Amino acid sequence: MSMIRILVTGGTFDKEYNELDGTLFFKDTHINELLALGRCKIDFSVRTLMMIDSLDMKETDRQLILENCKSCSETKIVITHGTDTMVETAKVLGDNIKNKTIVLTGALIPFKFGSSDGLFNLGAAMAFVQSLPHGVYIAMNGKVFPYNNVRKNRQLGLFEEIQ
Amino acid sequence: MSMIRILVTGGTFDKEYNELDGTLFFKDTHINELLALGRCKIDFSVRTLMMIDSLDMKETDRQLILENCKSCSETKIVITHGTDTMVETAKVLGDNIKNKTIVLTGALIPFKFGSSDGLFNLGAAMAFVQSLPHGVYIAMNGKVFPYNNVRKNRQLGLFEEIQ
Amino acid sequence: MSMIRILVTGGTFDKEYNELDGTLFFKDTHINELLALGRCKIDFSVRTLMMIDSLDMKETDRQLILENCKSCSETKIVITHGTDTMVETAKVLGDNIKNKTIVLTGALIPFKFGSSDGLFNLGAAMAFVQSLPHGVYIAMNGKVFPYNNVRKNRQLGLFEEIQ
Amino acid sequence: MSMIRILVTGGTFDKEYNELDGTLFFKDTHINELLALGRCKIDFSVRTLMMIDSLDMKETDRQLILENCKSCSETKIVITHGTDTMVETAKVLGDNIKNKTIVLTGALIPFKFGSSDGLFNLGAAMAFVQSLPHGVYIAMNGKVFPYNNVRKNRQLGLFEEIQ
Repeated sequence: MSMIRILVTGGTFDKEYNELDGTLFFKDTHINELLALGRCKIDFSVRTLMMIDSLDMKETDRQLILENCKSCSETKIVITHGTDTMVETAKVLGDNIKNKTIVLTGALIPFKFGSSDGLFNLGAAMAFVQSLPHGVYIAMNGKVFPYNNVRKNRQLGLFEEIQ
Repeated sequence: MSMIRILVTGGTFDKEYNELDGTLFFKDTHINELLALGRCKIDFSVRTLMMIDSLDMKETDRQLILENCKSCSETKIVITHGTDTMVETAKVLGDNIKNKTIVLTGALIPFKFGSSDGLFNLGAAMAFVQSLPHGVYIAMNGKVFPYNNVRKNRQLGLFEEIQ
Repeated sequence: MSMIRILVTGGTFDKEYNELDGTLFFKDTHINELLALGRCKIDFSVRTLMMIDSLDMKETDRQLILENCKSCSETKIVITHGTDTMVETAKVLGDNIKNKTIVLTGALIPFKFGSSDGLFNLGAAMAFVQSLPHGVYIAMNGKVFPYNNVRKNRQLGLFEEIQ
Repeated sequence: MSMIRILVTGGTFDKEYNELDGTLFFKDTHINELLALGRCKIDFSVRTLMMIDSLDMKETDRQLILENCKSCSETKIVITHGTDTMVETAKVLGDNIKNKTIVLTGALIPFKFGSSDGLFNLGAAMAFVQSLPHGVYIAMNGKVFPYNNVRKNRQLGLFEEIQ
């Protein structure tokens, strides 16, 4: 059993630029590359569950994430996820899992863009998952929110407390 | 009063390449650039105390850091610091301050190198400082150590517990 | 009069990532940033004519480019351009201008992506425009082609001679 | 026989940062990585002759470079080289080889630094070597100089004509 389980679901984080047609697409996750860049010395194991835009995420996808969180032996879990429906997934997990610390994170800019916030967010997520009590959280851009008091503000491109 | 006080002391983090003579040197801190890259939404204020290699840090420098930690109104403090003597500075702070959370971090590779761990470490430090109880810690490469149980392993280029 | 006139028309080169909605868009050109990165010491002046995807380029746009090439006092001109219709624009210029050296270049990957070919292509274009005889050329990915013997191979994502 | 022979000698271009002791050192050349980034489609072959700081280059090293330029079957040669003694090497080559086009280039900033001029310079060198007449040249930062009318201005960090 590793110290931290990392579950990959896709999202902006892992988008790449297709040089043949100019579209953004998913290939492989960059999570291992980011952790290597961070010279991450904490024990972790990565599992890719899907590689999709979170706007395309269906209820069955969320159930798959939920099952993986439940069944893995680790009690500290980081999930990389598109920001658009990160709150919905966090709610499914938060309503069903109480005995683990789960941190969802993502990026506003694909990692492959030089100006991505991905490495900063991943560093924060790996820290929060070690230090926060059991519960489900969203960690983005230096802040952390409990799953039941957070929303994405699409105009500003940030997460904020509901109240 | 901001949420987090960031104190800059230099270290590998902020080293730059002098294109005239090929040496590494310090100019300005990159900390604001990194926080902008991380789209950091938490309230913080940055103060540069010095901009030196931590091998050149003297006892008076550490006293200056200590005084700044004591006198600032914030109770959450992140310090960027060279890794070579980070442990010594942490000890001075840890032996003298008990009512704040202080996280020292740094980088093995200058931020200006594409392959730096700095953004990952800063993300983690900003997270640990929010979530850990009062005390002095070193946060590097995904791990966090209390100040009195950590050493730098120079052969491996990493921090580890003493016991 | 500068040594080299640079005309900017947009193209993949200058695409940016919109972190609010995940689309690619144009804002300002990155050409000055690239020339600064290259520490370009040759005298040049930059003029942005438009900032569009070359698939959206109309005949009036090409006439505007043609007029600018004709009317500027420089005899060495570099044009940054989307690759999809770069050949069409080159033909308009090549059929109408015989007394200048004009080099069109672009990128397969936006400059803001870490993995862009833009800086390499721009370096090559700045070199070809200085050393080639009067004529209109396309310079991409280390190769140079006269305007009347080149086509884009969309399957392979490269330019090639027609015969 | 390839179209262009690339000879690697080291220089700032290929310097890396040693994260264990904070020094700059040479490991492998980054030339293939740069050409991949440039999606270079022209036929080339790379040979590493040495991997040294050009301040450490001795007369025997220059003779080795000279012999390789003479004996290779290609007539177009690009040499990556430290900038400090690039002019000296160019002189040895220029005085002895008249039937080939040889372009020396380098970088003011190591490629592994995000802000390197290396990719721009390499793009330009690959272009000049294809388009200039036989002779030996130095190509740096958008400019090209014949080997017998160039010097490095160390105060300004640039190359300039002697007269």
